[in-house]
Amino acid sequence: MVSQLPSEFKLIAHHFAPLSLGFPGAYELRDDAAVISPSPGFELVVKTDAIVGGIDFSLDEPADFVARKALRVNLSDLAAKGAIPRAYMVDLILPDTIGEAWIANFAAGLAQDQAEYEVYLIGGDMSATPGPVTVAVTAFGETPPGRIIRRGGAKAGDFIFVSGTIGDAALGLAVQKGKLTDLEPDQASFLMDRYRLPRPRVRLGPRLIGMATAGLDVSDGLVADLHHLCDVSNLAATIEARRVPLSSAARVAFAAHPELFSTILTGGDDYEIVFTASPKQKAAIAGLSRSSGVPITPIGVMAQCSEDAQSAVSVIDDRNRPLVFASEGWTHF
Amino acid sequence: MVSQLPSEFKLIAHHFAPLSLGFPGAYELRDDAAVISPSPGFELVVKTDAIVGGIDFSLDEPADFVARKALRVNLSDLAAKGAIPRAYMVDLILPDTIGEAWIANFAAGLAQDQAEYEVYLIGGDMSATPGPVTVAVTAFGETPPGRIIRRGGAKAGDFIFVSGTIGDAALGLAVQKGKLTDLEPDQASFLMDRYRLPRPRVRLGPRLIGMATAGLDVSDGLVADLHHLCDVSNLAATIEARRVPLSSAARVAFAAHPELFSTILTGGDDYEIVFTASPKQKAAIAGLSRSSGVPITPIGVMAQCSEDAQSAVSVIDDRNRPLVFASEGWTHF
Repeated sequence: MVSQLPSEFKLIAHHFAPLSLGFPGAYELRDDAAVISPSPGFELVVKTDAIVGGIDFSLDEPADFVARKALRVNLSDLAAKGAIPRAYMVDLILPDTIGEAWIANFAAGLAQDQAEYEVYLIGGDMSATPGPVTVAVTAFGETPPGRIIRRGGAKAGDFIFVSGTIGDAALGLAVQKGKLTDLEPDQASFLMDRYRLPRPRVRLGPRLIGMATAGLDVSDGLVADLHHLCDVSNLAATIEARRVPLSSAARVAFAAHPELFSTILTGGDDYEIVFTASPKQKAAIAGLSRSSGVPITPIGVMAQCSEDAQSAVSVIDDRNRPLVFASEGWTHF
Repeated sequence: MVSQLPSEFKLIAHHFAPLSLGFPGAYELRDDAAVISPSPGFELVVKTDAIVGGIDFSLDEPADFVARKALRVNLSDLAAKGAIPRAYMVDLILPDTIGEAWIANFAAGLAQDQAEYEVYLIGGDMSATPGPVTVAVTAFGETPPGRIIRRGGAKAGDFIFVSGTIGDAALGLAVQKGKLTDLEPDQASFLMDRYRLPRPRVRLGPRLIGMATAGLDVSDGLVADLHHLCDVSNLAATIEARRVPLSSAARVAFAAHPELFSTILTGGDDYEIVFTASPKQKAAIAGLSRSSGVPITPIGVMAQCSEDAQSAVSVIDDRNRPLVFASEGWTHF
């Protein structure tokens, strides 16, 4: 189909080009590519992730929330790697049911987050699809050379820390699906909001460089993501269930439905940072938690792999008994 | 849905991780982000573009062709900007009808093109969708600082050049749709192949730095893309129709169906480079064409904008009469 020429270009010029102002290499989105170089003394860290309507977000989600979620899931990865975010590109793939008001609201969501995270839109693409709204974002950040926080690098004896609280988003998704009807409305909406809109730890992440021996963001689920860290670090991890930090809403939900503990630990979409650090760093990390205002909680310890272990990640209860989960976390396939 | 954990990670480890070997900052796709820095004396040029099944490629296209098209449309943009390609990331968004054999063939297509273009897969993401196969690629290249070939920069009096031949892909799409049945089979398959698989001018593009004053790749259609160049350069362009280089198959099709000239000039998917250069460069460009083995043809001239012109781009016939097109080129909306 060949439709009227100007509209795709007008949409970009009107709604998206303003988001590129302030980043000279974006050429106001009036060229075919962007130019980016790391700041002196830094190297670029790049990440791409896509979200799909009906899979990763609800089809009735407002466009500004879709935009912000698509951006934030990528900023969360950069943060967990210790990178300061700088810029991003968007592939926006739209069914023909989408009108210009939706696009305007999508751009408004990006504008809101650009102000919050100091990033710029430097390029992208609009495509038509017979499928659902799909948004792929590529995010660019930077770290000092060789200082990116990897999945590998943890040492046996390192403590395992996690930022913020775990399980809120997975419980929020349950609320959205009509479950947990016994929660107070403000608790229910707190949890749903945590599902709808990640809060990437953009300011905390870069401050973990020099403290964290390994780390990643919690998106697939705490157990699954810690498993990734164990795989690459070639170590095992033990988490003490009672130490996993819960929000007050999650505590209420858990008290009424103890079987939800599996959802909390494996449901994903937390967008917190799980990382390992030497026990010697405990005081420094407590200080960082205070100065940043972000709770950082020790939840377990890394150890050598044991040949007879069922899994690299063990979760133990108050009496040192292992908990068993049907699944360790989210996967698309 | 929470499915079995290992499979998404196993798919990446088995089919995609080998494509990252040779690029240390890709960490064998076993981390959450990649590290990339321009070579000393260069800056990074980045581009993203997505292709959607049923829109940008036929739903029965083999996976290796889908992969190569997705990569090549991005490499074509880098080439036209004068950038040497180095790496790319892929968001692979798949319906549940796709099996592992398809994914293996997709990866094989990428491997084939990595060998041809000397690029590495440095990251990506797999997502599920209820829609068609969708592939978003972000490509990374590099140019000497400040030397990227822009859309802006053309001067009045510059000649307009185009690489290769124009219109083959658009005619190939017509053949694929069951038209042009009077062509010889080898001509028909030549044209279809040009539609299915772009040949980005990866080696030519970087050699245009210092010669081209402006340029871009021909993807929306020669007239539309030249229009983009005119917009940013704030100039007008006149193309002599008889100078537009056609393949022998396109000449046969055109001779039998003169009305196809509009398709040739506006159909798009050529993935050639259209650029402007000072008339003084004509001999150097002819030399570059000979040494690179790529036809480069002067097709027109840039001029100041005229207030009474219908469009910034005029196409004139042998008697200086302007040709008029219903549409200047492809747009998704």
